[in-house]
Amino acid sequence: MVNYKMVLAYDGTRYNGWQKQGNTKDTIQGKLEGVLGKLEGKEVEVVGAGRTDAGVHALGQVANVKLEVKISEGELMQYVNQYLPEDIAVISVEKVPLRFHSRLNAVEKTYLYRIYQSEIPDPFKRKYTTTITEELDIEKMRQAASFLVGEFDFKSFCSLKKYKKSTVRTIYSIRIEEVEREIRISIRGDGFLYHMVRIIVGTLIEVGTGGKSVEEMKQILDKKDRQAAGSTASAQGLFLKEVRYEM
Amino acid sequence: MVNYKMVLAYDGTRYNGWQKQGNTKDTIQGKLEGVLGKLEGKEVEVVGAGRTDAGVHALGQVANVKLEVKISEGELMQYVNQYLPEDIAVISVEKVPLRFHSRLNAVEKTYLYRIYQSEIPDPFKRKYTTTITEELDIEKMRQAASFLVGEFDFKSFCSLKKYKKSTVRTIYSIRIEEVEREIRISIRGDGFLYHMVRIIVGTLIEVGTGGKSVEEMKQILDKKDRQAAGSTASAQGLFLKEVRYEM
Repeated sequence: MVNYKMVLAYDGTRYNGWQKQGNTKDTIQGKLEGVLGKLEGKEVEVVGAGRTDAGVHALGQVANVKLEVKISEGELMQYVNQYLPEDIAVISVEKVPLRFHSRLNAVEKTYLYRIYQSEIPDPFKRKYTTTITEELDIEKMRQAASFLVGEFDFKSFCSLKKYKKSTVRTIYSIRIEEVEREIRISIRGDGFLYHMVRIIVGTLIEVGTGGKSVEEMKQILDKKDRQAAGSTASAQGLFLKEVRYEM
Repeated sequence: MVNYKMVLAYDGTRYNGWQKQGNTKDTIQGKLEGVLGKLEGKEVEVVGAGRTDAGVHALGQVANVKLEVKISEGELMQYVNQYLPEDIAVISVEKVPLRFHSRLNAVEKTYLYRIYQSEIPDPFKRKYTTTITEELDIEKMRQAASFLVGEFDFKSFCSLKKYKKSTVRTIYSIRIEEVEREIRISIRGDGFLYHMVRIIVGTLIEVGTGGKSVEEMKQILDKKDRQAAGSTASAQGLFLKEVRYEM
């Protein structure tokens, strides 16, 4: 039995997210398990580092799968890419110790959110950005974002009402860049709550348009109440960019 | 009656090209005529500068339409973008003299072709590039391309066998750039024959992989025979980038 770590990129547009749900095959995990199960000759379980939502994309999702079939890393990558649909790709394969678990061992994740600032729609960006017609004040967004960097209880930025585990997470950095008419927000942290990145982005957009003040971000964090934060930014602008491990 | 010039961007993936064919609605022209016909209250004709093939995209297609309905440029743009599908967008509207004809008055067109050079498929580039797994020799491609710049009979680069009109065209420039792992070929000329850009690119790719020598490009041009040139590069890498007028 060999444990394979795979780095994946996918266009999440037509999928119902990462996680398999019952018998539905329209998930990334479902597609991968279908292809790898055929190779192995029996059902396999593919574990993903991040359970991306419906419509969310990945540039560097990490997954692992334990296989008995004898196959090299290169052969596995070629086999899987040959049978996967074109909107999912394995970009690297590596043999890892059997104890490696892509979700439980992840120590850092980076998400990218792309906002397109324009009154004119762009047919090539529509599935990969949120379009905002108003002008955003990036300096204010940066200032508001700085309140979120550090170890905090991010309960205000979580969509699950009854969450029994800790809602404390550490955000290492939030970088906001402007590239042509696109605003790219990169958020790096030790882990993220359900919808956390999208609620942070939704709140930052409200700061950028002037709907909320810079200082309100601090108050939202302190309130530990989802109602205090802004709306959840749409799924199609979000990319799971990178997952890091310390093993 | 006012003649409106519109600049359009579209993702051609799910369309059967620009030109309306009988009753089929799955063309860019068909979509535009549907939306504008509703506004005008009767059938209208939208004339496009370039008749892009199925799967070909546009960053700056130009079209014109004559309307009797009273509407400003801004209102027309907003109306059309509201009712067009998300993969087609009007990016500018301008009132022009009634004699303006987007196809007949075009004096220069620029096409862009994107090649992705990688052994690993990229889910985000698949619909907008041709993926080549071999390494391409760009310097050789540039040298071969230089034989095509000027006024020549491009019969070898035309898919239509029985073409009664002149096959002489002028190419003003062919620029080949490498951006990360993408090779971008921009071809600017006074007009292009059926499949001409895609056959030029297909032949340049064969020079890049070593399948044809640099000097063969000159011989192919001289032969005036489609059989001499390389294969037709696939539609999804091609973009109509810009159309220019002298009025």
